[in-house]
Amino acid sequence: MKQFMDENFMLDSEEAQVLYHQHAAKMPIIDYHCHLIPKMIADNYQFRDLTEIWLGGDHYKWRAMRGNGIDEGYITGNKPDYEKFEKWAETVPYTMRNPLYHWVHLELRKIFGIDKILKPETAREIYDECTAKLQTEEFRAQNIMKKCKVEVVCTTDDPADTLEYHQQIKDNPFGVQVLPTWRPDKAMAIENAKAYNEYLAGLEKAANVSITSFSDLMKALRVRQDFFESLGCKLSDHGLETFYAEDYTQAEIEAIFDKVRSGKEATQEELMKFRSAMLFEFAVMDFEKDWTQQFHVGAIRNCNTKMFEKLGPDTGYDAIHDVKMAAAGHKLLNKLAYNNTLTKTILYNLNPGDNEVLTTMAYTFNDGTVAGKMQFGSGWWFLDQEVGMVNQMNSLSVLGLLSRFVGMLTDSRSFLSYPRHEYFRRILCNLIGEDIKKGKLPRSEMAFIGQMVEDISYNNAKNFFKF
Amino acid sequence: MKQFMDENFMLDSEEAQVLYHQHAAKMPIIDYHCHLIPKMIADNYQFRDLTEIWLGGDHYKWRAMRGNGIDEGYITGNKPDYEKFEKWAETVPYTMRNPLYHWVHLELRKIFGIDKILKPETAREIYDECTAKLQTEEFRAQNIMKKCKVEVVCTTDDPADTLEYHQQIKDNPFGVQVLPTWRPDKAMAIENAKAYNEYLAGLEKAANVSITSFSDLMKALRVRQDFFESLGCKLSDHGLETFYAEDYTQAEIEAIFDKVRSGKEATQEELMKFRSAMLFEFAVMDFEKDWTQQFHVGAIRNCNTKMFEKLGPDTGYDAIHDVKMAAAGHKLLNKLAYNNTLTKTILYNLNPGDNEVLTTMAYTFNDGTVAGKMQFGSGWWFLDQEVGMVNQMNSLSVLGLLSRFVGMLTDSRSFLSYPRHEYFRRILCNLIGEDIKKGKLPRSEMAFIGQMVEDISYNNAKNFFKF
Amino acid sequence: MKQFMDENFMLDSEEAQVLYHQHAAKMPIIDYHCHLIPKMIADNYQFRDLTEIWLGGDHYKWRAMRGNGIDEGYITGNKPDYEKFEKWAETVPYTMRNPLYHWVHLELRKIFGIDKILKPETAREIYDECTAKLQTEEFRAQNIMKKCKVEVVCTTDDPADTLEYHQQIKDNPFGVQVLPTWRPDKAMAIENAKAYNEYLAGLEKAANVSITSFSDLMKALRVRQDFFESLGCKLSDHGLETFYAEDYTQAEIEAIFDKVRSGKEATQEELMKFRSAMLFEFAVMDFEKDWTQQFHVGAIRNCNTKMFEKLGPDTGYDAIHDVKMAAAGHKLLNKLAYNNTLTKTILYNLNPGDNEVLTTMAYTFNDGTVAGKMQFGSGWWFLDQEVGMVNQMNSLSVLGLLSRFVGMLTDSRSFLSYPRHEYFRRILCNLIGEDIKKGKLPRSEMAFIGQMVEDISYNNAKNFFKF
Repeated sequence: MKQFMDENFMLDSEEAQVLYHQHAAKMPIIDYHCHLIPKMIADNYQFRDLTEIWLGGDHYKWRAMRGNGIDEGYITGNKPDYEKFEKWAETVPYTMRNPLYHWVHLELRKIFGIDKILKPETAREIYDECTAKLQTEEFRAQNIMKKCKVEVVCTTDDPADTLEYHQQIKDNPFGVQVLPTWRPDKAMAIENAKAYNEYLAGLEKAANVSITSFSDLMKALRVRQDFFESLGCKLSDHGLETFYAEDYTQAEIEAIFDKVRSGKEATQEELMKFRSAMLFEFAVMDFEKDWTQQFHVGAIRNCNTKMFEKLGPDTGYDAIHDVKMAAAGHKLLNKLAYNNTLTKTILYNLNPGDNEVLTTMAYTFNDGTVAGKMQFGSGWWFLDQEVGMVNQMNSLSVLGLLSRFVGMLTDSRSFLSYPRHEYFRRILCNLIGEDIKKGKLPRSEMAFIGQMVEDISYNNAKNFFKF
Repeated sequence: MKQFMDENFMLDSEEAQVLYHQHAAKMPIIDYHCHLIPKMIADNYQFRDLTEIWLGGDHYKWRAMRGNGIDEGYITGNKPDYEKFEKWAETVPYTMRNPLYHWVHLELRKIFGIDKILKPETAREIYDECTAKLQTEEFRAQNIMKKCKVEVVCTTDDPADTLEYHQQIKDNPFGVQVLPTWRPDKAMAIENAKAYNEYLAGLEKAANVSITSFSDLMKALRVRQDFFESLGCKLSDHGLETFYAEDYTQAEIEAIFDKVRSGKEATQEELMKFRSAMLFEFAVMDFEKDWTQQFHVGAIRNCNTKMFEKLGPDTGYDAIHDVKMAAAGHKLLNKLAYNNTLTKTILYNLNPGDNEVLTTMAYTFNDGTVAGKMQFGSGWWFLDQEVGMVNQMNSLSVLGLLSRFVGMLTDSRSFLSYPRHEYFRRILCNLIGEDIKKGKLPRSEMAFIGQMVEDISYNNAKNFFKF
Repeated sequence: MKQFMDENFMLDSEEAQVLYHQHAAKMPIIDYHCHLIPKMIADNYQFRDLTEIWLGGDHYKWRAMRGNGIDEGYITGNKPDYEKFEKWAETVPYTMRNPLYHWVHLELRKIFGIDKILKPETAREIYDECTAKLQTEEFRAQNIMKKCKVEVVCTTDDPADTLEYHQQIKDNPFGVQVLPTWRPDKAMAIENAKAYNEYLAGLEKAANVSITSFSDLMKALRVRQDFFESLGCKLSDHGLETFYAEDYTQAEIEAIFDKVRSGKEATQEELMKFRSAMLFEFAVMDFEKDWTQQFHVGAIRNCNTKMFEKLGPDTGYDAIHDVKMAAAGHKLLNKLAYNNTLTKTILYNLNPGDNEVLTTMAYTFNDGTVAGKMQFGSGWWFLDQEVGMVNQMNSLSVLGLLSRFVGMLTDSRSFLSYPRHEYFRRILCNLIGEDIKKGKLPRSEMAFIGQMVEDISYNNAKNFFKF
C-alpha cells in the first residue's frame, strides 16, 4: 500500500522508478530562470524563522489563505510571525490537491528533513524545528542552494540594475554560478510617460549615456547589455500580455520616443508600435550575443486595484488571460527569421489553451542550426503543477521533440523551491515510464531513454545555454 | 469482473469506495440552482407517463435523437407518447459514452428501481412499468424529491414573477425547502425595445411602481428584490454571453433607458453600456442582501433560426461559444471589489477552454472574509458530464481550493435529475481516492478527507448560502 | 511484460483487445480524404528507394528533423538519398513520444514486414531491405493500397483539374475506388487579383465557359461540378482559416468580382464578403448534389516567409491558429439550414481548444434526416495523434454520438500512411474497452458495441458517403 510521498511518489510504474532513481535523481540542478534577490545570495542571508523564508513574498500561499477565509492581517499584515504561520498551517489541509500541498511537504522533507504532515496539530513543532535549523550555517541562503545540488542560477534583472551583487558573488565564488538575466520590460514601458522618464534617468546613470533620442536609448541599452554579458548573462526574458508585431517605421518610433521623452503620453496605437519595435530590437540584440530569449505571455496582472494600491505588484492578484497569440507571435518570429536574426527562443504561456498554438509556433521556426533551437517552455506559474506539466510535456511530445526540451526552472522568489525540480523530474519519468510499460516505447532502447531523461533534467540546459 | 453501473460505479480504487459509501452517499441534496417549474411542485404534479416526465422539455435527449436521424415529429411533434418513447429507446444504445446513457440508467435504477438496459427490446416493459409507477402517490413531484433526499431546491425566477407558487409551497410545507432565485436577465434586455417595454409593464404591475425613468426601474427592482428575500431567496443568477464592463456615466444610462422606454432601439454601444450598468447595479443589490451571485457565461443561443421560429428557446439549438472572458470579467469584479460591494460569487463557464481563466479570475478577488467566497462553479450544461466535471475539479484543485467548493447542482428542468448528484459525488470521490491510492494525499488524514467529501457534497453549500 | 507495439499495442484491457481483434481489425479501409497524387496511382508508380517514398513531401518528418538540428540540405536539399535517410534515422530516436515514432515503426512492420527499431545502428539494413522491396511489383503504388485493404480513396482536386488520371483509373480498375474531391479554395482566393485571373483562365478552359461575370463563374463551376460527379465525387472540402459569414448582397458580390476580374485588388472588407458568398454558394451546390461538405479550419499557413520563398507551401511551416470559430460558423450553417440547403457536413478543427465549440456547433444543425448528418471530424494534421484522437473522440462522445462517427481518414500525401487507420482503431477500441472494463458500458451489450466499432471503422463511412 503506497504511502504519502514515499520514494516512488508520482512514479506509478517500475519503469518510471528506474528512470527516476537511476537517471533523473542524480543530476544537478540548473535553474535558468528565477526571481531570487541577488543581495540575499551575496550576503549568504540567514532567515529569522520559517514564516520569513516560507510566507514572505510567496503569493501562491497568500492566494490560498485568502481563499480559505484568512484575514489579510495574517497574510501581508503586521501580525506576529508565528500567528501568521498558524494561519498558514490551518490552511494547508484545505490545499489538498493543490500543488502547494505537495510543495510544502516536499520542502519540509527534502530541505528540513521533517516527515510530518503540516496541520494545526503539528504547526508548533514544525515551526520550532525549522526555525531552529534556520539559525544554523547549514540553512543560510548559499548553503541551501548547495544542499539542493544547484549548479547554476539565473536571476531576473533590469538593464539599469548595477548588478553589484552578481559582481560580489563572482568575486567570492561559493560553488553555484549566479548569473544575471536581461529583463528589459521597463525599457519599453512607455504607457506612463512620467514613470518612463524616471526609469530613463536610472538607465542613463547606469550606462553613463545621455538619452535624448531613440538611438541614445539603444546605445545605452547596448552598453548595459555588454555589462550583463561580462557577468555571464546568457538569457533575456520578457513578461508580456501577448506578442506585439505592429508595422512601424524607424521615423515613427523615433517620434514616439521623442513625444514620451518630452513628457507627453503616447496613444494606444503609438504604444503598440513602440512595443513592437522594442521587442524586435531586443530580439536582434539577443541574436548578436547568441543569448536565448524567453517570452512569458498570457498573464493579466494587477487585477485587484484596491489591493494593488495597498500592496503593489506580485502579491497574488494576477490571473490567466485569454488574449490572442498566434498572428502577432508568428509575425514577430517570421520577421526575425527573414532577417536572419532569430536567436534561440523559449515560449512560455500561462493559458493552457495556448499550449498547442505555442508549440507549433516554436517548431515553425526551427532552422536546423541548433537542436531544439525553438523551445516550448516548461509549465509556468499557475501551470507549474502536475496537470499543467503533463499537458505541457504532452503538447511538446506530440507536436515537437520532448527529447530536446531544456526542462524545468523554478521561476521562484524562494530559496526553498528547488524540490520542484524533483517534482518535475518525477512527472517526466512517470510519463515516459508509463509509455514503456504500455509498449508505446521500446524497452530495448532503455539506454537511450535513460540518457534522454538525464538530458531533459540537466544536459540539454547546460549545452543549450552554454553555461 | 466489474458489472455495468454496480455499487462501485466510477469508484476505481478502494479508497474512492470508502469515501463514497461512508461519506458522500449519506449526505442529503441541496440543489441550489435548477429550472423546475414551481407550479408543478406546488401542485404535487402527477405525470401521465414516462414520455412526459422524461422527454417533455429535455433538450439533451432531443439533440441526441436528432443526431440519430429521428424525425422531429417524434421529438417535439404530435406523435403519440409511446411512439416517441420508442424512438428514444431506439436512440439510447447510440448514446453510449454520452452522459445520457448513464443518466438514463441511473434514473431507471435509483428512482424507478429498474435494473434493465433500455433498448428497443426492453422499451415496452420499461415504459409500462414506469408509467404504472407514475400513477402512484410515491411518484408525484414532491414525493420524488423526498425520495431523493432533497433538502433545498432553488428555482430560477424573473423579478416580475408573482412567486405565488413559492408562497403556496411555503404555506404548505412538505419537507423540502423550495426557494426562488433572482434571475433578472429580462430587466437588462433592451436589445428589443418593444419586448422590453412589455416586460416593464409586467414589472410595474408586480412591483406596483410606475417606471418612467431609470431610477424608477431600480426602485421597482428593489421592491421585487425585497419580496424575493421574504420568500427565502439567497441567490441571483445571470445568463450571459460574456461579462460586460464598459465605462459609462449615470447620465448616459438614464438617457439610454429613456430612449428605449420611448420605443426607440438602442445602438450596439448603448446596449453594451446598459448591460454593463445593470450587471454592476445587480451586483451591488446582491451585496446589500448578502446573496450569492451566479454568472453563467459562454453560451451561444438560439443558433438555428428555423427551429427557433418553430419551437422557441431552450429546445436544443444552443452551443458553446468562444468569446473572451478575462478583460471584462476582471474589470467588473475589480470595480465591485474596489467599491467594497463584491458579494459571494460563482462563475460558471460553458467553454471548457475558459476553466483556467475563470478559476484564476475568481481567486483574484477572494478577500479573506468568507472561506471560498469566490467560487469556480460546477461543470455546467454541456460540461455536466464526467470529462467536464473532472476538468472542472482539476482546474479548481490546482488553481484554487477544492475543499471549499460548494459542489453540484442539477440546473435541470426535470424531477428525475437528482441522481446526477450521485454521479458527481462518485467522480469527486474517485479523483480524491485515486490520489490517496497513489500516495498523492496522505492516508493518515482520512478523517479530514472524509469530512472534505461531506463538505463538498453538502455542508459547504449549506453554510455558504446560509440555508 | 508488454513489448513495444505488440499485437495488443494501445489495447490496455481485455475488452479492448476483443473489440479490436474481433471487430475493428478485419474491416477494410475507406480513406475518404487524402492528398495522394492521382497520376502516381494511375501510373502504378514504382518508388526508387525508401527516401523517396518516406521523406519526399512528408513535412511532418521535415519539421522533426529541423527541430533536431539537421541541416536543410539533408531535408529538402540536394544531398544523396541515403545521406538524407541517415539523418532521418539519426532523428528517429529523438521523436520518442511523437506520433512519428509510432508511425515509422507501424509502417515498417505492417507494410515492409520489418520488426526492427529504426536508429543509426539499423539505418543501413532497413534502408537496403525496404529499397529492395520497393523494386518489386508488390510495392508499386496500387499494390501497396491493395495490401492495406483499401477499398475507397478520395483525393483532393481543384475544379479546374482535368481529372484525367481519375478517368484513367476508372477505365483501368485495379480493385480500389479512386474518387475525386471538390476542393475549390482557389475559386474564392481573390486576395491576389493577378493569381486569381490566371486561375480563372484555367477554369475557363476546363469548363469551356468564358468567365466575364460572377454568374459566368458560377456557371463554369457547375459545369466542372457535373464533371466531378460523373467521376464519382461525393465530397467537397474547404481549407479555411475560419468560417466566413459576412452579410452581402448579390450586387456587391458581382461588383467585387468585376473589380478583381479587371485586375484591381479587393479591399479586406470585399475579400471577406466574397469569401462569405462563395462559401454559401459552394454549400448550396453540395446540397444539390447530396455531397458531403468538409470544412478544415484553424490553420495559420506559410508562416515562415524565408522558407516559403525557397520551398513553397506545405513544407512544414504551418501552425495552429487561435481565431474565433463560433459566431461565423453558426451564422453560415444557420443560413443554410434556414434555406433548407444544408447538406451533410464534417467540421475539422486544428486547434484542440475548438473541439467543444465545433462539436456543439455541428449538433445544433442535425435535423433528423440522416443519422449523424452533422459530423465533428477526426483529429486532423497536428491532432492526428493519440492525445488528439482521444480528445476528439471524448468530445464527440460526451457532446454528440460517437456511434454515428464516420471515423478516420489519413489526410496524407503518402502511400504508406494506411496503418494510421489501425492506430485510430486501436485507440477507439481502447477507449470503449476501458469503459466496459470499468463498468461504464454494459458487457451485456457486447454485440451492439462490437457492431458500433465496425460501424465507426468502416460501415458508417460507407453508408454516409454512399460509396
